[in-house]
Amino acid sequence: MKIIVDAMGGDNAPQAPVLGAIQANREYGVDIILVGRGEAILKVLADNGVSDLPAGVEIAHASEVVEMCDNPATAFREKKDSSLTVGLNLLKNGDGDAFVSAGSTGALLAGATLVVKRIKGIRRAALAPVVPTGGGGAVLIDCGANAECPPEYLLQFAYMGSYYAEHVLGRPEPKVGLLNIGAEPSKGTGLQTAVYPLLQQAARDGRINFVGNVEAREAVEGAVDVIVSDGYSGNIFLKTMEGTGLFLARELKKMFQKSALTKLAALLVAGGLREFKAIMSADEVGGTALLGISKPVIKAHGSSDAYAIQNAIRQARQYISAGIIENIAENVDQMRLDAPGKEE
Amino acid sequence: MKIIVDAMGGDNAPQAPVLGAIQANREYGVDIILVGRGEAILKVLADNGVSDLPAGVEIAHASEVVEMCDNPATAFREKKDSSLTVGLNLLKNGDGDAFVSAGSTGALLAGATLVVKRIKGIRRAALAPVVPTGGGGAVLIDCGANAECPPEYLLQFAYMGSYYAEHVLGRPEPKVGLLNIGAEPSKGTGLQTAVYPLLQQAARDGRINFVGNVEAREAVEGAVDVIVSDGYSGNIFLKTMEGTGLFLARELKKMFQKSALTKLAALLVAGGLREFKAIMSADEVGGTALLGISKPVIKAHGSSDAYAIQNAIRQARQYISAGIIENIAENVDQMRLDAPGKEE
Repeated sequence: MKIIVDAMGGDNAPQAPVLGAIQANREYGVDIILVGRGEAILKVLADNGVSDLPAGVEIAHASEVVEMCDNPATAFREKKDSSLTVGLNLLKNGDGDAFVSAGSTGALLAGATLVVKRIKGIRRAALAPVVPTGGGGAVLIDCGANAECPPEYLLQFAYMGSYYAEHVLGRPEPKVGLLNIGAEPSKGTGLQTAVYPLLQQAARDGRINFVGNVEAREAVEGAVDVIVSDGYSGNIFLKTMEGTGLFLARELKKMFQKSALTKLAALLVAGGLREFKAIMSADEVGGTALLGISKPVIKAHGSSDAYAIQNAIRQARQYISAGIIENIAENVDQMRLDAPGKEE
Repeated sequence: MKIIVDAMGGDNAPQAPVLGAIQANREYGVDIILVGRGEAILKVLADNGVSDLPAGVEIAHASEVVEMCDNPATAFREKKDSSLTVGLNLLKNGDGDAFVSAGSTGALLAGATLVVKRIKGIRRAALAPVVPTGGGGAVLIDCGANAECPPEYLLQFAYMGSYYAEHVLGRPEPKVGLLNIGAEPSKGTGLQTAVYPLLQQAARDGRINFVGNVEAREAVEGAVDVIVSDGYSGNIFLKTMEGTGLFLARELKKMFQKSALTKLAALLVAGGLREFKAIMSADEVGGTALLGISKPVIKAHGSSDAYAIQNAIRQARQYISAGIIENIAENVDQMRLDAPGKEE
């Protein structure tokens, strides 16, 4: 198994991707292609006492870097020798089994869609992070790739999220919920009321375990394994969680810094506090899968450190082994509203 | 000033509303009308050692109660002698200055709209809670009254939220943000891209302090005083905050219960922990204003205890004194897309 890693993507590149990849190579025994400026990659290795490339690690030189200021929709085409475009082409050509990047989400999504292409029959790729919940995490699909969605997209998101939860997170018969503002099928906007019966039908056909609408509060508390949403609402959900986590972490810090006694208390729960912080940490959760793309592509958080990149590579490895792209491709006719012979 | 209180609404009625109202009467010197079953109200008073009605507190008998299982859209009409309907009619007739209820949100919204009526020119009443943020709280408008909204609703929400933040929360020139998934005016769905220029125009006219799109994370962290949203997305935002707060509070509790040492730590920060919990508590925030109704109506949280009811009454008092309903009524032509003489 060989993972292609964008050595130039993210706030902490090239250090974080290079060191995270080396670490993943060591711990999981996966082969790695580091894509980016050769000299910069070698310098990171030398600075960290690695004089030769470890076995199973190679470099694919790419002279350009996609920056956050580049137009995401066209960056992969305008910078043909960027680590993003070179990496995606390696994936497309079968030189590696998955691509991991902490670079621009928009550029990665556009590049993956146009270079690697979507699974045939899938209308749109979706961003599917695993969000921390009281149930040990849930797949949120979509969280921003598609702000506005017709019902068919959400039907496809439900299937793709369900496969991912089952085979990558290891949840048997994953509970699929439609993000909504009430339990009744009549709740929500025209989108949710149109999607509800589609998901219900998929459940009746025994294809997904649709458990109905899920309110945001219950979703965070862990009521479902897959949270199905349009990209706009999914993004509001994800960013509200992040914001609330950051806000409360700061308040907690203030509480522990009040006096000598509270500082002592902080010492007594130091281990627990680390675990507490890890719950909401993007670094622990790993990356966001671009579900619907015909080969595994993982977006790591922009602020990823080496450990986060390592986690994203671990996730890419699970994604490859799970065979869910094949699952999706085989069942794609069931996810289409216009498919021949499909009842609606 | 006289506040009408629904003595039968909420999970803890009649105890919580009756005792909260008595407490508010004592602390703020406001007159109170307790609406509900006379004997039940008197029993709560007697059980708590109050043998005579305090000065300034009266009872308006209503024999029925709107239950959670009643149809919210029609409950106020079907149960004409409910505390909800009797209370709203007292408000309409000028027997009191505001109505506070912890009962069904939907029934209160429908009843307020049809009995008390909206401010002339306002298209829809909105639920506008004050959500806890890093900036000391922000008005979220709407959070669920109107799942689907045309642009004009959001323009009106922005004005109403701005008046509320300025005159009830005491924020001069409140910063108004449009809840969105990115900063650029092109971000979001067709709704946000249509609303953005309307809010920009209102800002250019010097009517509101529109600061642009606000992402959910920055909204929680306190970037704005008013978060403008359709009811569906606002509800996702609110419930995600609540869920994340509950989830993290539970994890924190686990952390402190691990061993004798962590339990000691909990004792050392006990005061701080109480404050920490209060940040996310619905009881502290008070109630949700039904902005757009022609008289002040406050929805207290369904699980309100006496203290929460007291807070909601305090809020009703500020709402009355602020005179914002008059402000809204005077400026309503500016909030309409079809108003005569208004440039667009």
